[in-house]
Amino acid sequence: MTAIHPVILCGGSGTRLWPLSRKAMPKPFLPLVGEETLFQQALRRVAGDARFAPPMVVAGAEHGDLIAAGLGDTPGARLVVEPCARNTAPAIALAAALLPTDAVMLVCPSDHHIADADAFRAAALAATGLARQDYLVSFGIAADRPETGYGYLERGEPLEGGYAIRRFVEKPDLATAQAYLASGNFSWNGGIFAFRAGHLLAELAAYRPEMARLVAEAVAGGHDEGVRFHPAADPFAAIAGDSIDYAVMENTARAAMVPVDMGWSDIGNWAALVDALADTADAAGNVVRGGSVDLADCTGVLALTDGPRISAVGLEDVCIIVSGDEVLVTTRAGAQLVGKLPGAVKQ
Amino acid sequence: MTAIHPVILCGGSGTRLWPLSRKAMPKPFLPLVGEETLFQQALRRVAGDARFAPPMVVAGAEHGDLIAAGLGDTPGARLVVEPCARNTAPAIALAAALLPTDAVMLVCPSDHHIADADAFRAAALAATGLARQDYLVSFGIAADRPETGYGYLERGEPLEGGYAIRRFVEKPDLATAQAYLASGNFSWNGGIFAFRAGHLLAELAAYRPEMARLVAEAVAGGHDEGVRFHPAADPFAAIAGDSIDYAVMENTARAAMVPVDMGWSDIGNWAALVDALADTADAAGNVVRGGSVDLADCTGVLALTDGPRISAVGLEDVCIIVSGDEVLVTTRAGAQLVGKLPGAVKQ
Repeated sequence: MTAIHPVILCGGSGTRLWPLSRKAMPKPFLPLVGEETLFQQALRRVAGDARFAPPMVVAGAEHGDLIAAGLGDTPGARLVVEPCARNTAPAIALAAALLPTDAVMLVCPSDHHIADADAFRAAALAATGLARQDYLVSFGIAADRPETGYGYLERGEPLEGGYAIRRFVEKPDLATAQAYLASGNFSWNGGIFAFRAGHLLAELAAYRPEMARLVAEAVAGGHDEGVRFHPAADPFAAIAGDSIDYAVMENTARAAMVPVDMGWSDIGNWAALVDALADTADAAGNVVRGGSVDLADCTGVLALTDGPRISAVGLEDVCIIVSGDEVLVTTRAGAQLVGKLPGAVKQ
Repeated sequence: MTAIHPVILCGGSGTRLWPLSRKAMPKPFLPLVGEETLFQQALRRVAGDARFAPPMVVAGAEHGDLIAAGLGDTPGARLVVEPCARNTAPAIALAAALLPTDAVMLVCPSDHHIADADAFRAAALAATGLARQDYLVSFGIAADRPETGYGYLERGEPLEGGYAIRRFVEKPDLATAQAYLASGNFSWNGGIFAFRAGHLLAELAAYRPEMARLVAEAVAGGHDEGVRFHPAADPFAAIAGDSIDYAVMENTARAAMVPVDMGWSDIGNWAALVDALADTADAAGNVVRGGSVDLADCTGVLALTDGPRISAVGLEDVCIIVSGDEVLVTTRAGAQLVGKLPGAVKQ
């Protein structure tokens, strides 16, 4: 059996973890949970396991050095340098065009946290089985709350190792999300996919022919530079960007999902980070990262500093982030709004 | 009629406004309310008014330069440099020993905010009248809440321009403070005093003879240096420090008070500063001091920074102070505990 080809996406600038996450240092390159960055954790999940081929990373040129540092001496790793950001469908198609047509690719965002790597790998194997039967597979993340910020997958008929996808639902309202959670038939769409490279390209050609043509042109006109591959900039820039969900997954007749419960979090805001760090919290639920922090009469506080001391008194469910010349203080509930703050917007 | 001699005390290091107030830069030298420091405001209250003589400032050597900067070219001002901190009674006695024996001295702490300077001056005149009748006079600050952190004065029989003091009460418990407030017979002891210099020294000699002897010795052995007077260090250091309340006011048979309602605040913690700055608050009750501050969905927030931007979301009645390499975040209720934080204690 041939290996699974991990394709690790390092796109997006991210503002909701501002001021720690910035354009120059986006979420994948931050050691948010544990000592390693999320990107390093994404690499580690598929490393040292013969079932996985060396990773292919797709990222913007501005993060090339961060990627190279994260890759270290990972043998066989390749880096595909996006000339510009065009959303996930072109990024994934680039990788597909560079892989053998029968290779099963496992597309992994690098800005998520996955607590249970074994569950992740087991789901990857199940997804691979479906991909070899010409399914386009999405991981269906076990939903544990009526989240309104995610897309949902509804399960259809059972398949070997998974389910057909009955439908995709974009961010639902709260009542709908509550109904989904109660039904048990809906999972979160976590943006993790498996498909044969050639199959993905064929489906893209069917539903987004212009995109498929421009990706092929960008690859044909590209050049290697050590482990880096540089697609031709002009055709890639000419692509009308789109997500893989819109461009392919919601159109194909062969959409499948594998259910997985793996302690997943997209760490979409500071409150989510507190949850992801729950096992490092003290008895009062406080989480401290970074240097000197003194908390008095605090519960559920996240205090994270890159230098200055944080002292806090009497707070409940508040996140305090000190990074560079920015100090952010937000309630858990307010964390959703951080990306709209002037500091986050005007980076 | 001879002038009133202002004696401005600049003692105390203060930890409850940490991290803004520090040993090297205590509260009197901070521009907490308005553009001027509290010390400059204390000077201004008795400046440009022929009823007041030039000020005499009593302060520690470590703050000599701050005092000199604050005094500017105030004509006739003098600075008495305490060799070490020995509480208020020795500091006041030093000043008394340097003034004409019949001079009425008006002792003013410099770490308080007084919104209504006219009311202050009117009370000073009333107190002076009583002082000339050989009363030792304390300002009785109108109490507007059952504060448990202050000392109280109970009014006795009426005098011309004030009242005798029936008794002094140290920080009462809440029920007692509430009863005081309801009775209308109690005022806060704000640490502002008026007495004839010679009378104060005579009373001190009666109740604290050793302190009076050592102060006289320190003055006799002292020397001038421009506008500065340096008492002899050894006798002053030998004094057992005490407050003027304990040493004299609570012992004398001639204690009087003048009631005054002058928008007084000792700015004893960050919550008190929010109150003192209420007229600068926005419609949501937020007060911003210093540079760049962005507040979203905040009410009753104080945000004060000496440089880094503060961004805050969803907070209610929280104070955020960024000063040097310290970031303090405290609820209003928690502000009382700030002085006990490791950062404040270990300065």
